[in-house]
Amino acid sequence: MLQRIAVLGCGRIGVMHAANVAAHSGARLAGVYDVNLDAASACGARYGVPVFQSSDAVFAADDVDAVLIATSTSTHSDLIEAAVRAGKPILCEKPIDLDLKRVELCKRRIGASDVPIMLGFVRRFDPGHRAAREAMLAGEIGDLHQVIITSRDPGMASSAYIEVSGGIFRDMTIHDFDLARYLLGEEVVAVSASGSRLVDPPLMERCNDYDTIAAVLSTASGKQAIITNSRQAAYGYDQRVELLGNKGMLISENRRNNHVTKHVRDATNVSAPLLNFFIERYSEAFNVEISAFVNSIEAKKPVEVGFEDGRLALVLAEAAVKSVTEHRVVAVKEIG
Amino acid sequence: MLQRIAVLGCGRIGVMHAANVAAHSGARLAGVYDVNLDAASACGARYGVPVFQSSDAVFAADDVDAVLIATSTSTHSDLIEAAVRAGKPILCEKPIDLDLKRVELCKRRIGASDVPIMLGFVRRFDPGHRAAREAMLAGEIGDLHQVIITSRDPGMASSAYIEVSGGIFRDMTIHDFDLARYLLGEEVVAVSASGSRLVDPPLMERCNDYDTIAAVLSTASGKQAIITNSRQAAYGYDQRVELLGNKGMLISENRRNNHVTKHVRDATNVSAPLLNFFIERYSEAFNVEISAFVNSIEAKKPVEVGFEDGRLALVLAEAAVKSVTEHRVVAVKEIG
Amino acid sequence: MLQRIAVLGCGRIGVMHAANVAAHSGARLAGVYDVNLDAASACGARYGVPVFQSSDAVFAADDVDAVLIATSTSTHSDLIEAAVRAGKPILCEKPIDLDLKRVELCKRRIGASDVPIMLGFVRRFDPGHRAAREAMLAGEIGDLHQVIITSRDPGMASSAYIEVSGGIFRDMTIHDFDLARYLLGEEVVAVSASGSRLVDPPLMERCNDYDTIAAVLSTASGKQAIITNSRQAAYGYDQRVELLGNKGMLISENRRNNHVTKHVRDATNVSAPLLNFFIERYSEAFNVEISAFVNSIEAKKPVEVGFEDGRLALVLAEAAVKSVTEHRVVAVKEIG
Amino acid sequence: MLQRIAVLGCGRIGVMHAANVAAHSGARLAGVYDVNLDAASACGARYGVPVFQSSDAVFAADDVDAVLIATSTSTHSDLIEAAVRAGKPILCEKPIDLDLKRVELCKRRIGASDVPIMLGFVRRFDPGHRAAREAMLAGEIGDLHQVIITSRDPGMASSAYIEVSGGIFRDMTIHDFDLARYLLGEEVVAVSASGSRLVDPPLMERCNDYDTIAAVLSTASGKQAIITNSRQAAYGYDQRVELLGNKGMLISENRRNNHVTKHVRDATNVSAPLLNFFIERYSEAFNVEISAFVNSIEAKKPVEVGFEDGRLALVLAEAAVKSVTEHRVVAVKEIG
Repeated sequence: MLQRIAVLGCGRIGVMHAANVAAHSGARLAGVYDVNLDAASACGARYGVPVFQSSDAVFAADDVDAVLIATSTSTHSDLIEAAVRAGKPILCEKPIDLDLKRVELCKRRIGASDVPIMLGFVRRFDPGHRAAREAMLAGEIGDLHQVIITSRDPGMASSAYIEVSGGIFRDMTIHDFDLARYLLGEEVVAVSASGSRLVDPPLMERCNDYDTIAAVLSTASGKQAIITNSRQAAYGYDQRVELLGNKGMLISENRRNNHVTKHVRDATNVSAPLLNFFIERYSEAFNVEISAFVNSIEAKKPVEVGFEDGRLALVLAEAAVKSVTEHRVVAVKEIG
Repeated sequence: MLQRIAVLGCGRIGVMHAANVAAHSGARLAGVYDVNLDAASACGARYGVPVFQSSDAVFAADDVDAVLIATSTSTHSDLIEAAVRAGKPILCEKPIDLDLKRVELCKRRIGASDVPIMLGFVRRFDPGHRAAREAMLAGEIGDLHQVIITSRDPGMASSAYIEVSGGIFRDMTIHDFDLARYLLGEEVVAVSASGSRLVDPPLMERCNDYDTIAAVLSTASGKQAIITNSRQAAYGYDQRVELLGNKGMLISENRRNNHVTKHVRDATNVSAPLLNFFIERYSEAFNVEISAFVNSIEAKKPVEVGFEDGRLALVLAEAAVKSVTEHRVVAVKEIG
Repeated sequence: MLQRIAVLGCGRIGVMHAANVAAHSGARLAGVYDVNLDAASACGARYGVPVFQSSDAVFAADDVDAVLIATSTSTHSDLIEAAVRAGKPILCEKPIDLDLKRVELCKRRIGASDVPIMLGFVRRFDPGHRAAREAMLAGEIGDLHQVIITSRDPGMASSAYIEVSGGIFRDMTIHDFDLARYLLGEEVVAVSASGSRLVDPPLMERCNDYDTIAAVLSTASGKQAIITNSRQAAYGYDQRVELLGNKGMLISENRRNNHVTKHVRDATNVSAPLLNFFIERYSEAFNVEISAFVNSIEAKKPVEVGFEDGRLALVLAEAAVKSVTEHRVVAVKEIG
Repeated sequence: MLQRIAVLGCGRIGVMHAANVAAHSGARLAGVYDVNLDAASACGARYGVPVFQSSDAVFAADDVDAVLIATSTSTHSDLIEAAVRAGKPILCEKPIDLDLKRVELCKRRIGASDVPIMLGFVRRFDPGHRAAREAMLAGEIGDLHQVIITSRDPGMASSAYIEVSGGIFRDMTIHDFDLARYLLGEEVVAVSASGSRLVDPPLMERCNDYDTIAAVLSTASGKQAIITNSRQAAYGYDQRVELLGNKGMLISENRRNNHVTKHVRDATNVSAPLLNFFIERYSEAFNVEISAFVNSIEAKKPVEVGFEDGRLALVLAEAAVKSVTEHRVVAVKEIG
């Protein structure tokens, strides 16, 4: 039986998810919803599926088995709570909320419910990052010592976006915090972060934000994760992961559109640009994510990345903000 | 309007094509056919499409706009002729026939028909090879001097297959002959080929075939294409193209499943295996091929690779066989 | 005129320097000295040069134009002071001393002397790191934002060495602190460091040292340098530098003995091991260093890396130690 | 005891050899000679060694243990004969002569002499090519099937040079013929060659020469070597070797001055240019060659590449010329 999944939110990411669900061999697109009905109608028409008039209508629909929440961040918690009440398994884009208090309220409200809630930390599903982790778990580099994550956007987002983003740690680094937790295999106990304003200093000043950061995470056993972010990599969306163990190293490199190299006077090995942004770079991963969601529902297995993972990534973001502000290492238990 | 395409032949390649057509945004799988009705039924059931009881039924069907011929080679010419009579555009797997005489008979029979016939020389549609050609056409390496094609199968085919394959030049190198013509942009006038029996000498002796070959093609202006083939590359299906011009070089490298590198004692940069065989390696290309076919039908533009390309690739294969046998350069006009 | 250089210290590094000086086209090996006279004799015999009986004899010799100090660290300051008194230009291995107070005493003693003192921070002279810096200075990546230095030893040093090393920051990271200053082109104002005991926890406990560290340096304008060190990279001595600017990125990759790749079942692109340790990895750089020393003497130009660079690298090491101990960002001005 | 080697010929290559001999730990430059006495004097002065007034004076000198012949090609045979008469071991630049008859006369004249004669086929001594061969001999790719040699000059030589070069096969491909023999480990029995005039057609017409060639060599057991040459690789001196065996592949890639990659908008992985020409590209190999010569003299072992190798490479060049002219495969035994 195909899982009938409705997509809430028909913005850039929602439309991508709708396309992936529609094309997925184990799922069917059960319909779409957006507060902007025009956006919803366009998306629904494209895939020949119903357009719901409200999120309540989605949750009430008998022919919707599960929901994918890709609406704006501020609505995530409400929608998660509603979906849980309706008993519909949830795949929700990150973050749960920008405010840790709201996340914790959501946590209390959903309580002991066994409705599956999966968080869309898509990088966990990247075939490269995943293959590196599997090789590590298989012992190919011995005991893990350091995780090094390089994550750079191709260019500064619009100021409108930055203003409501919650800041780089909650908006951008949060992916890397989750990926670090996934790869470390142990909980992070301490966070040290540094932030600079180099790409667009006036905007960063105005928003009290940073565009260039480094964060060092430590686990109780001393494993480290070193994360660097920049809002601007002129050469493309740069996404690399390096794992150092006592017997070797694994690197998950960037992907490209093709593997053509050009060799001319003064420049050899010239390769194709990096895939420009997350929809292209993680296109495989977004599909694997849908598969993982469908599989966990069907096999009644726990989701691979759940509500608590969403909460903990936000806790690390809070710790990073505190570390930058107070110029010191912040213990994760100080946050929550 | 989606092009309604029926797939004839439900073997390994036909099933792949059926899946691609079914998932294609511009096409619909109109049904399937195979002399082996069980194979056809399984494939039809998988995609929920009709199973035709005969090829004639396919050609007679009003709701079939075009046909994709992926049956055994010996049936290609008959089916092309029938499809032309029925006015259905054709995408036919290579080769048209192993016997050049049969190809020429087919050519006479289809005569001046304007039914589109596209040949499935899939390598022309590989994003890497294609990007290299486009960079060359854009002048990035100046005037083309040499094309170097490395093409190696991951392992020897079954003896049953080899026995009916028509020999390495008609079966395997034919792809490279077409790719060389595509990249050279000029007709080949002379062929020199060398063949060896190194992978499986007894089988090659028995079939009067070769498993390791080199071929050098020349155009009237002196451009050269150098092709090397082996039936066995233990490290995987190796598919590379190199273009040398007077201002530079372009290389279309192999693809891999991921871009993880491993670094351990005595071995660094260890990369993932090559994609094992043509269905995986050219998965992107097979989809681009369907798109090109659909686009040429819809836009009523000539197909990118047509019947005459199929015939000329076979002519080069004949010339190569003659060159190996007679230990000399063979002029293409000696063949046809 | 060839510069006549005497080498003090005939241990592993001294012998390497003696060989480089002897083979250098602009220098002549004027003699060698070591407290261990057997070591000095062996080295002198190898190059057919005089063996001095004391360091004072070296400084008194008329046919010695300059000295290269490669003795044990604790003697560096005394020898620098003596060489300055003798008016002999100095190339001294890093560090000046493990104790910042001794370095500052040395600084006061040499006072306003104009005898050239060059510090052997060899990584500044690596052709790769240098080419990356030059490309950056030429504007190829725009304004510099981040420097990322990966520096890992191939394996844990002997416990005897570790015990007297002064700790990882003063012994190993000090190279990276200098390289960071060189690449940043601005003084570092703040240091944040994290240390773990993962490679050899008991030894690290006993020595109150760390074998796995991360350090984040910041300049007044917000440029960052992120350094990671490990005492054990099982795959070889790993030395990489990455520069991120607002228009692009430069990476100085590792060197290898050859550029052969192996492709076999399940492992492709297998490359040669990394050069095992600093003498091999920085063999080119050690020669460029001698050239730079000779050139600055002959052209009476300032040395490229001087006493104050040596002192400042140690200041950063002190700041890193304090940061690890106090779990906070340390301002460089707190140290000296 | 250091081997005292005199260098005959103080042109570009002779001067390089003189420098290498002078710096070599196992040899001493015993003096230099050139018909152009100014060239000889400049070279002698540079290394502080005697300048001989005639080649006879070199051969008569008691303090000359061996000779390195780097004079113009037409003098090689005479000088080899004279050195053999004088009992001085010889390292002679390739080719022995452009005329196979003269080579064979030389062979008869030196007869059964046991004076070591080593030919300067420098590519055999390249650490990369050599490491690939050693890995093959160690069984890492199983049985060898194909050798693929890519060899391209960075740009067309002067017309004055081309006119006396003997043609591309005797001048340029001869290196690849020797390398193919070295790597195949079996004698070549058949040669097929194709030549084109694409880089400088008028010059090639006038000299009855080719600037772009492909050659396919076969051994009795069917092993193949495929060689491609171009007189112009705009991106630098391109020197690659690929070995295909039944268990894998080895590739000896190009060398570069450094390993810096640049990543900017629209171009990633941009690497340093190739080393421009043979003196830079094979700098390591020229030193290994001197070592091999010195070692074989001292250990009284056969040279690694001798007179007969020089003759056989020329035989293959003759066969290639005949093949291009007669448009057919030429059996090596047709030549000599």
